[in-house]
Amino acid sequence: MSSSFGTLFRVTTFGESHGGGVGVVIDGCPPKLPITIEEIQRDLDRRRPGQSAITTPRDEPDRAELLSGVFEGQTLGSPIAVLVRNTDARPSAYEDFKDTYRPSHADYTYEAKYGIRNWQGGGRASARETIGRVAAAAIARKLLASTAKVEVLAYVKQVWTITADIDASAVTLAAVESNAVRCPDAGAAAAMIARIDAARRDGDSLGGIVECVCRGVPPGLGEPVFDKLEADLARAVMSLPASKGFEIGSGFAGTTLTGIEHNDPFTAAGGRVRTLTNRSGGVQGGISNGEDIVFRVAFKPTATIRQAQQTVDRQGQAVTLEAKGRHDPCVLPRAVPMVEAMALLVLADHYLRQRAQCG
Amino acid sequence: MSSSFGTLFRVTTFGESHGGGVGVVIDGCPPKLPITIEEIQRDLDRRRPGQSAITTPRDEPDRAELLSGVFEGQTLGSPIAVLVRNTDARPSAYEDFKDTYRPSHADYTYEAKYGIRNWQGGGRASARETIGRVAAAAIARKLLASTAKVEVLAYVKQVWTITADIDASAVTLAAVESNAVRCPDAGAAAAMIARIDAARRDGDSLGGIVECVCRGVPPGLGEPVFDKLEADLARAVMSLPASKGFEIGSGFAGTTLTGIEHNDPFTAAGGRVRTLTNRSGGVQGGISNGEDIVFRVAFKPTATIRQAQQTVDRQGQAVTLEAKGRHDPCVLPRAVPMVEAMALLVLADHYLRQRAQCG
Amino acid sequence: MSSSFGTLFRVTTFGESHGGGVGVVIDGCPPKLPITIEEIQRDLDRRRPGQSAITTPRDEPDRAELLSGVFEGQTLGSPIAVLVRNTDARPSAYEDFKDTYRPSHADYTYEAKYGIRNWQGGGRASARETIGRVAAAAIARKLLASTAKVEVLAYVKQVWTITADIDASAVTLAAVESNAVRCPDAGAAAAMIARIDAARRDGDSLGGIVECVCRGVPPGLGEPVFDKLEADLARAVMSLPASKGFEIGSGFAGTTLTGIEHNDPFTAAGGRVRTLTNRSGGVQGGISNGEDIVFRVAFKPTATIRQAQQTVDRQGQAVTLEAKGRHDPCVLPRAVPMVEAMALLVLADHYLRQRAQCG
Amino acid sequence: MSSSFGTLFRVTTFGESHGGGVGVVIDGCPPKLPITIEEIQRDLDRRRPGQSAITTPRDEPDRAELLSGVFEGQTLGSPIAVLVRNTDARPSAYEDFKDTYRPSHADYTYEAKYGIRNWQGGGRASARETIGRVAAAAIARKLLASTAKVEVLAYVKQVWTITADIDASAVTLAAVESNAVRCPDAGAAAAMIARIDAARRDGDSLGGIVECVCRGVPPGLGEPVFDKLEADLARAVMSLPASKGFEIGSGFAGTTLTGIEHNDPFTAAGGRVRTLTNRSGGVQGGISNGEDIVFRVAFKPTATIRQAQQTVDRQGQAVTLEAKGRHDPCVLPRAVPMVEAMALLVLADHYLRQRAQCG
Repeated sequence: MSSSFGTLFRVTTFGESHGGGVGVVIDGCPPKLPITIEEIQRDLDRRRPGQSAITTPRDEPDRAELLSGVFEGQTLGSPIAVLVRNTDARPSAYEDFKDTYRPSHADYTYEAKYGIRNWQGGGRASARETIGRVAAAAIARKLLASTAKVEVLAYVKQVWTITADIDASAVTLAAVESNAVRCPDAGAAAAMIARIDAARRDGDSLGGIVECVCRGVPPGLGEPVFDKLEADLARAVMSLPASKGFEIGSGFAGTTLTGIEHNDPFTAAGGRVRTLTNRSGGVQGGISNGEDIVFRVAFKPTATIRQAQQTVDRQGQAVTLEAKGRHDPCVLPRAVPMVEAMALLVLADHYLRQRAQCG
Repeated sequence: MSSSFGTLFRVTTFGESHGGGVGVVIDGCPPKLPITIEEIQRDLDRRRPGQSAITTPRDEPDRAELLSGVFEGQTLGSPIAVLVRNTDARPSAYEDFKDTYRPSHADYTYEAKYGIRNWQGGGRASARETIGRVAAAAIARKLLASTAKVEVLAYVKQVWTITADIDASAVTLAAVESNAVRCPDAGAAAAMIARIDAARRDGDSLGGIVECVCRGVPPGLGEPVFDKLEADLARAVMSLPASKGFEIGSGFAGTTLTGIEHNDPFTAAGGRVRTLTNRSGGVQGGISNGEDIVFRVAFKPTATIRQAQQTVDRQGQAVTLEAKGRHDPCVLPRAVPMVEAMALLVLADHYLRQRAQCG
Repeated sequence: MSSSFGTLFRVTTFGESHGGGVGVVIDGCPPKLPITIEEIQRDLDRRRPGQSAITTPRDEPDRAELLSGVFEGQTLGSPIAVLVRNTDARPSAYEDFKDTYRPSHADYTYEAKYGIRNWQGGGRASARETIGRVAAAAIARKLLASTAKVEVLAYVKQVWTITADIDASAVTLAAVESNAVRCPDAGAAAAMIARIDAARRDGDSLGGIVECVCRGVPPGLGEPVFDKLEADLARAVMSLPASKGFEIGSGFAGTTLTGIEHNDPFTAAGGRVRTLTNRSGGVQGGISNGEDIVFRVAFKPTATIRQAQQTVDRQGQAVTLEAKGRHDPCVLPRAVPMVEAMALLVLADHYLRQRAQCG
Repeated sequence: MSSSFGTLFRVTTFGESHGGGVGVVIDGCPPKLPITIEEIQRDLDRRRPGQSAITTPRDEPDRAELLSGVFEGQTLGSPIAVLVRNTDARPSAYEDFKDTYRPSHADYTYEAKYGIRNWQGGGRASARETIGRVAAAAIARKLLASTAKVEVLAYVKQVWTITADIDASAVTLAAVESNAVRCPDAGAAAAMIARIDAARRDGDSLGGIVECVCRGVPPGLGEPVFDKLEADLARAVMSLPASKGFEIGSGFAGTTLTGIEHNDPFTAAGGRVRTLTNRSGGVQGGISNGEDIVFRVAFKPTATIRQAQQTVDRQGQAVTLEAKGRHDPCVLPRAVPMVEAMALLVLADHYLRQRAQCG
């Protein structure tokens, strides 16, 4: 069950970074939803490395193929399988690491768990695995937009110590895509890009924070207990490579407020119940209240760097690791579509669950 | 599926705060595990309100009854059902809120979702629901201690702006239980207690941070993709009432480090692979690496306060809410056993999953 | 996961025949469905032993208690827990079998699996476990009747070699309940009752066939591949104690027809597509076609008899087993509500699944 | 969830008969299991149409490709994806049926469910979907053979009214594969082949019964309640196209025995508990007892015939359907590997479940 996500909009990814390919099977998508391979490809292109000078240089065309589940431009209600071939298989590039555990990678833990790993790359720990998630989320996006008018938008909020000033309720996709770092605050974006360039030159890497806003989510999505909307969102984004933290609404900062400062007063506006503030982040008691859902994800600095590092090999001998070649000094811009993807998968699933139980 | 948690150590809770009772069914527990009702009761007593002057005064005996699955002191391998009767049913205390949406409670969202709610209390949103989780976790604790020598310990790290200084690797249960606020830093604990007392007098409430350490977890627990150990931990604790954030290892603070500062160098010690630092928080690539698992959970200030608040009723009319009676000004001490419970449930589940797949 | 059934109308039973009690948690039931404990009790009374001279004499009051999920006569959308206390705990009656494997019972296989069993009765293998299923099905029946006008009716089709002549499309509940054996063919019923009485006197037991008809099932329920409606029905009834076979529509007899003899011609009638014959049994390609769903379940003769039998004890020593006391010579009349229950649970689940995916 | 099967050895199939291809993702397979594409291909070749004059003439090369999860000849523990391209896409052959509901096919029910169907073939109802199951089962077979010495063997027991005489405990794969109809009784096989040839000439079709024996299954597999081994086997084979019935051990015939005639006496032999007879069919109380598991599956005559049939089109107009081209007059020989596949998937899943819960 490790590779499946969701109860009713159920996604199963497969594939290692090296081997035949990576992909996804989406089971439970409603029928008669219009979808084209171009719409899927568009989202895949956003998460692709090598889109700009600041991101990873690996050239991945990532051409998606629809194997099933769509007929004459519409979903059939049957499983939708999407395949992206691996084309950049250069196992020799990894030959040097074959017996070495790269620090803060999954090399050691995979071996500890399985007694075997595909050393020709990161295996399932590779960011390539998220291709399947993003492809599936392109369909979830279509479903949510067509039925519930939901819009999900993520962006870079912080890189290293540089924090952007962004109004979650007003930010647009165009603003996000207006620069290479996907930070809609132009001043902060420029500083971030400069810092990322410096990190590349140093052979070092940077982390940061991605913020995501979900607009138009109807009240009533989410479940009271274990499957609270924030719980499922947390699990979803904490399953992305390099994520180390999640917070919704007031988050960690909210812990320093008192109750009277934190509670969101209710009001009636436009014929429906609203809150005057949104420290709840759009979710109360695990269920959406109709306000914007706003959450943040912390990403550590990428583990792959070019500086020399101390580690051990499979025999437990101390070795010094010095990675060659180019590296991606900051995963944040590419993490943006991944975070969106996970939010879309959670919302699509809860949309169908709500339809099942509450009609 | 809203009320079930776990794949193989599968827990299903039931019950509203008012009605016949609350409880849990645990399916998949291995047979021949020694367990007594006293062991379950002991953990339930830790999460019970009214344990000290600083916590909620509601007197809940919370007497647990084992309905099935245990025979002559040992688990049978069949579902274990535990029931705790509701004894403090005072629906009249809630009569005033019957038509009013309490700010930052689940009143409005439950109505939006279901079109009905049990207004005689918090329904499923009540902290009473966690009785079932804690009861189940007492059995998970026994399973993990008997087979994998795992120890899980949580404590209060922060209340409001008061932060404790605690060494996660050395803290003991005795130190945690040595004061009413369950903060093993005595100085910080005293300040927290004073601040909580002030909040009670003000009719206000406080939030904070609970930290949890899991020791003795063998390498190899967790799954590579969606069911990463940190993802399941995040979901688990974000399903607790009032939680707003989760972080593991370096967490949000780690975003300001660079890769070379953040990576945990490997070393060989005592015949096994270790890390020199633990910014990973005991998990790499979603899988435990044998180091202490350390994570933190942010809790907002409790929504129930006694100060007057603006809100609306079911007809959308503006009303002022003034809660009477006593209230719990700080949920943190009671959240400690709940956080432990969720970590135990996650670890027990992954322990069985690892046994299934990797023998 | 052994004790849960269904994806969206999800039922989890618990309890051994001896111990605190047996019961069920139903998760996923839609809110605002009117339900009373009397409606649940009514169905439980039908499956209760000791209803007539021909069935088992054990006196089980089986008083059901609603612990949660229903408020002011309506479902809340939260888990519905039902508990029935065990009152007839006479462990001494089983003391003699403590170390003996009763032939064709689960004594040996439970020990082989778990290394432990509750020898004070049949444990989870007892027909008492089905109390939870029947209670849950009473709610499923209400759901299906209120939304889709579905009616499910089972009856005894055969006991030993005595076969009844029954028109599945016309049979009524009143006819089924008109005699102790629940066979709506009065002549066959009389012969069956006489044969069952003889079996009781001989200390022997009888098997037979229960047939079930589901009327008013809308076209479209069921899934194309693994979760075909007939597959889920087969699993459902093959999970009942003593069942040995399942067939739908033409079943085993249909294997001797040719394609042109077996195919059901389509026709248009009353503004919708119908079939002229119903050898498909109401399901085509795993999905209901709107015709009556008709299936049959084979039950072996009950394993508990009073005649002397050869067996072994836990030490592998040959022993002769001679059960004392009274026994139930024919489980068929009690199996009727159990078969109905399983069909209702399957249909309720697929009803919600269809609503989720196809709106 | 329609397209997934199993809890721990979890199989998800995808693909329509026409479109990019069909395939499967297997999640949860233990690591370090040796597997080659040739082993998978070998089982696929057995289920392939066009293997002999008596089966369907469609030429399907069905070349399988391993996309992921296997590295240097061993499973990685990650999802194993297998793809088989569709090469025989002749949509024009189906153009005539585009608006017509073929009797006893899934055309009408798919439209009723989804409002859309892939009319270029049978969609998910096509037997091509079982390619994924058979591929997955090849891996399950390897797992079961390597760890538990389990052998699963199916064969044709009956075609039309011609019944074979076969000793389930002694039959061999070589005997099964010795003739085109996969019936190890040579005399019956000859009669079956002649009857199938006649049916082909008539443009008619035949059904029959496949029997399956599982040897070497250790005691303890299966679960007490809903997931009884016979329940999961029943569901598994009732999910195959054209199946109408399932029975295990004594099955329907056992209903005419009395308890003393039917019970299997226990004995001790070779240091373990055995039964003297096997009317239980290797399963007691839902759990394997170590004896051969023997079950039978009834298949209706294939719905595709060449004789003229009465039906309606999508507009509800009566039309006469006359299929052209060649057809498969008897699905039984091809159903043999499919039945084996489903038994293997069930056993592999329960093998892992037993390992998880009972160590």
